[in-house]
This record gives sequence, structure tokens and C-alpha cells, in this order.
Amino acid sequence: MALYQSGSPAVQNSQQSSNQGYVAGVDIGGTNLRIALSDTTGATFGKWSTSTVGIREPNAIVRLIADGVDTLLHQNAATRANLLSIAAGAPGVTDTDSGIVIATSYLLGWRDVPLRDLLETELAIPAFVDNDVNMAAFGEAHAGIAQGTKNFVFLAIGTGVGAGIVLKDELFRGDNWTAGEIGYMLVPGTSPAPVERGNPGAFEAIVGGEGIQSHWQSIWSEGSTTLPVDATATQIFDHALENNPLARAVLALSSRTLAYAIYNMALVLNCNLFVLGGSVGLHPVLGEATRAILRDQSARVQPRVIPSSLGPEAQITGAVFRAIQIAKTAALSA
Amino acid sequence: MALYQSGSPAVQNSQQSSNQGYVAGVDIGGTNLRIALSDTTGATFGKWSTSTVGIREPNAIVRLIADGVDTLLHQNAATRANLLSIAAGAPGVTDTDSGIVIATSYLLGWRDVPLRDLLETELAIPAFVDNDVNMAAFGEAHAGIAQGTKNFVFLAIGTGVGAGIVLKDELFRGDNWTAGEIGYMLVPGTSPAPVERGNPGAFEAIVGGEGIQSHWQSIWSEGSTTLPVDATATQIFDHALENNPLARAVLALSSRTLAYAIYNMALVLNCNLFVLGGSVGLHPVLGEATRAILRDQSARVQPRVIPSSLGPEAQITGAVFRAIQIAKTAALSA
Repeated sequence: MALYQSGSPAVQNSQQSSNQGYVAGVDIGGTNLRIALSDTTGATFGKWSTSTVGIREPNAIVRLIADGVDTLLHQNAATRANLLSIAAGAPGVTDTDSGIVIATSYLLGWRDVPLRDLLETELAIPAFVDNDVNMAAFGEAHAGIAQGTKNFVFLAIGTGVGAGIVLKDELFRGDNWTAGEIGYMLVPGTSPAPVERGNPGAFEAIVGGEGIQSHWQSIWSEGSTTLPVDATATQIFDHALENNPLARAVLALSSRTLAYAIYNMALVLNCNLFVLGGSVGLHPVLGEATRAILRDQSARVQPRVIPSSLGPEAQITGAVFRAIQIAKTAALSA
Repeated sequence: MALYQSGSPAVQNSQQSSNQGYVAGVDIGGTNLRIALSDTTGATFGKWSTSTVGIREPNAIVRLIADGVDTLLHQNAATRANLLSIAAGAPGVTDTDSGIVIATSYLLGWRDVPLRDLLETELAIPAFVDNDVNMAAFGEAHAGIAQGTKNFVFLAIGTGVGAGIVLKDELFRGDNWTAGEIGYMLVPGTSPAPVERGNPGAFEAIVGGEGIQSHWQSIWSEGSTTLPVDATATQIFDHALENNPLARAVLALSSRTLAYAIYNMALVLNCNLFVLGGSVGLHPVLGEATRAILRDQSARVQPRVIPSSLGPEAQITGAVFRAIQIAKTAALSA
């Protein structure tokens, strides 16, 4: 799932470079592509973004990435010879050993795309690719709120819901690279009816942005709210803060369902930290309501549920720090 | 939870010893204590068991263990000088780093018992202690159905329910040694009402042996079944195989609830193997009904759900193989 939204091509510059080389972190979203140029300490030397609407072909995406990287290098009076490594997060199941994006959602529609090889061929530097939510979890672990925490779960709640699971200081990926695909979790209140492939899972149908909007639409009536029937999840949560009963009902269901899922994961993993990210997950009222339910639920399982400190920058920050790791590994083996 | 039940003190002998030394595996249950003497290949040279009813004091348990070990050594014309190591599984939360049993259920009532130190002091050999369910999972990993499987979950379903979680070939224990305490998991059909400490969790209240018996009692009526109102879980499952409608209803609820929990864990961990153990979990009809529900549930998550191949020997086998590992580590560092 894409954590970020941004506008048309844009370049931001920051500071003067005096380092030994650059790395690039890339955030491939369903509708947007973002790149950050950084030195090997993680200091940012420029950001670039562009729309990917209508662009799905992997080679075209890789060429866009190369364009963005070249632009950022040029802005810093540098060339590709100064680029050490690149890491990219993609919105799909990703085999990090082979560097293949196995499957993405409909927005990109990728199947078995050798993204790492494509990037390495295009840029002639070491590359790393990962699922976007795992990349965001890596960001929180290395530069965010989860630094120094051995075991934690990063919950990306946007249109849908996904989790990045860090165990013993490493991302845990499971047998088929899909660990943390919790959109289909079954908790009290979710429908246990089988779900067709491609449809949202029972859990994200309540907790994800689309599900929240659907719930709102199903109870909306003129006169009961000042919000339109097509309000967004964050607008609905803002409205809940103003004590609108309809919005409170939507918040109550989504936070209760989220609390149950966190409770279950905390039981299974005995993991005491859950970091909320994604546009919906970052809304303060969701975290607050979820914590209240967990407090009432049990003295047994009482994990910390806190917002991501990197916010919308979690994924691209994770990509930058992964690129730094790749650059250091390459330097050691050179 | 205790996986095994056995009678009064008894010694079984097996074969002639010709090895370099022995190890002992111990299964401390709520009502029974079992010991296996083995060589460093895992071949068994004798088994011993005794009742622990009325015996709760840790030092008394350790003396019983020493008595059993001495008896088994004597039976094999050996002495304590021939004993290399010992490993014991206890029915409670266990810190395997410090060797302390943090808490057990009411049957033993232990709090912060330094069991490893007590065993090492008593027997003057290296010892290892672990939670009984984790020990059983270790048994399945090293000598049972899960050999060679990187990631799997061992589900011990007896009176209550617990899980031993093996990730990347190692037991995963969580932040406070309670990973796999899934008796409190919330799935569709379980009560989300808060549970007092000491009471069974919402999940094990349906899937565990006690919960199955309660359900049976709540729907039992004379004339509707040949089984008594106080039938055991396995008797009820046998009765379900004979198509008794009441017993089928109990089986349907427990297998559906178990299937949901497996489904959730398979999503979170992307783990494709679940091994069923414990007296209730080993009943073939429970596995069969659970597999049928998972098949209907989703094409997305389709883990293998199979019975433990070690059955009631899983835990003590795990203890033996853990003792072998400890003996080898000690030999390497000697």
C-alpha cells in the first residue's frame, strides 16, 4: 500500500554536500514516486517526486527513478559516479533475496518483476528492494520511534492495512514473503465469510480507509452531520473529535477492531510495541481510542500503541537507511 | 500445561548401553513427573515416572528428579559420573536465559523458581529449563514431524491451549517469554469481555478440553446421547465420529474457532505448518474438521495442519534433544 501522496514533479534542495558519496531511497507508490538523496549518515541532500498515474511498466518506472536520481545528483553538483547504492520500497509482496516484486495491487499490477536487477542494470550500483510497509518498519527501527526495540510491529493503515514485523532486530518475512498481511485477520465483529482474491479482507474492510468510508456512507443521513457522504477517513475522524455521533460510531468500530488485532498479535508474538503509520493510522484519535479499548480489555496484554515518529516519511527514510546498509556491505566486501 | 498423564512410579528399560555418556530429559507436569534417559544420539535407555500430586515445593520436585535419574542410571549399570546434562520442561512461563520458571498455573503455583540452578546444584551437570509447550515444539523440530521446517507453530491443546512458535529454526519467545500464549486470542465467536487473571481465556474456553466439556454440559440432555454429562473432550470427539448431533455441534464450534486462530497466525507469521499436539489436539477428528474449515475459508491462507508425530512423547523428546544440545555445547567449550 502507498503511504504517501504528492503532486507533480518537484525538487527540494537542502544543504551543501561534503561527503564521500550518496545513496538514494525510493518510495514507489500506486500513484506517486518519491526519491530522497542522502549521504551515508542519513542526512538528506534533496527530494524529488513525480506522478506515476498511467505509468505501470517496470522499465518505465526504473527510467523515472534514474531521471529523478540524475536530477538530484545534478542539483548537488554530483554525478552517478558519486552514487553508492539505491533501495526502493514497492507496494507489493517482495522477495528480498532475489530482489523480485512478486505481486502488487491493481494500481501497478506487477507480477514477478526483477526490480533489483533492473535498478542495478540501469544505475550500475548495488540495489535493494522490499515491500513498502517493511521498508517503513525498517525506517522506524533505524531512524524512528522504534530505535533500539528488538521486537515491534509497524501497522500501516491507509486505504488498506498491512504490518511490518520486526523480531530480534530483523524484519520477519515468513515462508512466502507475506508475513504481516493482516488485512484478512478474523476478530470479533469481522465477517468470517470467505473473501475473493483482490477484494479487501474482513479486517481492513473495517479498519482501512476505504472500509471507514463505506461504514460512514452506510450510516450517513442528511441533517445528522455537516460532513458530506463522501468524506475521507481522516475527515470522519476529525468529525469524531467534534463528538458527532455518526463519526463516533465509525471510530468506535474501527478502533475496537484494531485493538482486537493488536491484542491478538501481542499474544502470539509477546511484542510490546505497536507503531501506527499510514494516513489513517497516523490520526491521533484512532490511536487514542485503540489504547482506551486495550486498557479496558485486559491487564494481561498491554502493549504500547504509539504513532510513527517519521509519519509520511517512514517508508522513504527506511529506503535511505537500507541503501546506506547496502553501501556499507558493498564497501566491506570490496 | 501438562501434555502427559501417567501412573505411579514405574521404570521401563530398553536396550544395552554402549555409549560415551547419558543425558536426561524431564517432563514436569501438573500431576506427573516423567524422565527419559538417553544417549547423545537420542536413543532411549529407560523411562521413569511418578505422581507429583501433593508435591509442589521446587526442592522436593528436584529431589524427585534426582531419584528418578539415579534409578535410571542404576538400571543401566551407570552412575552420575556418566550423566552429561539434563533438560526439563515445566508448565509455565520460563526465562530460558536465566533458567527461571517465572510463573506456573495453580497446580504447581511456582513464582520465580530458579529451576536450572537447583538442577545444576543437585546434579552437578549443565541443565536447561523451558516451558513445556516450547519443549514439545523443540521435540517436533528435532525428532518429529517438523524436522527441517524453518517456521512452524506447535499447538498444544489439552485442558488449556498454548503454542510453541519456531521461526527461522529457533523458538521465538517474545519480550517477556510469553510468545504463543494464545489462550486469550479473540476470533469471531469468542467473547471479547475482559478476562480475570487465572481464568481461562476466551479462545481456550472454546478450544481447550475444559471448554469443550463445559459446552457439552450446557447442551447435554438425557435421551439425546449415550454419553454422560461429564464426558471428556476426547470421548465427545469420539461421539462426534459416530455422528451424534450434540457432539457434532461441540466439534463444529471448537474446530471453527481453532481454524480462525490458525488462519490469523498464518496471516501474521506467513507460516505454513501447524502441528497439533496435546491430548485434545491429537484427536484425529479435530484436525480433520479444522482442515475442512480452513479449506472453505480461503485460498489465500492454506497452511498444513497435521498431528504431532511424537504424540504424548513430544515434550519429553524435546527435553532429551535439548539436553543433548546442552551436552554438546558444554563439550565444545570444555
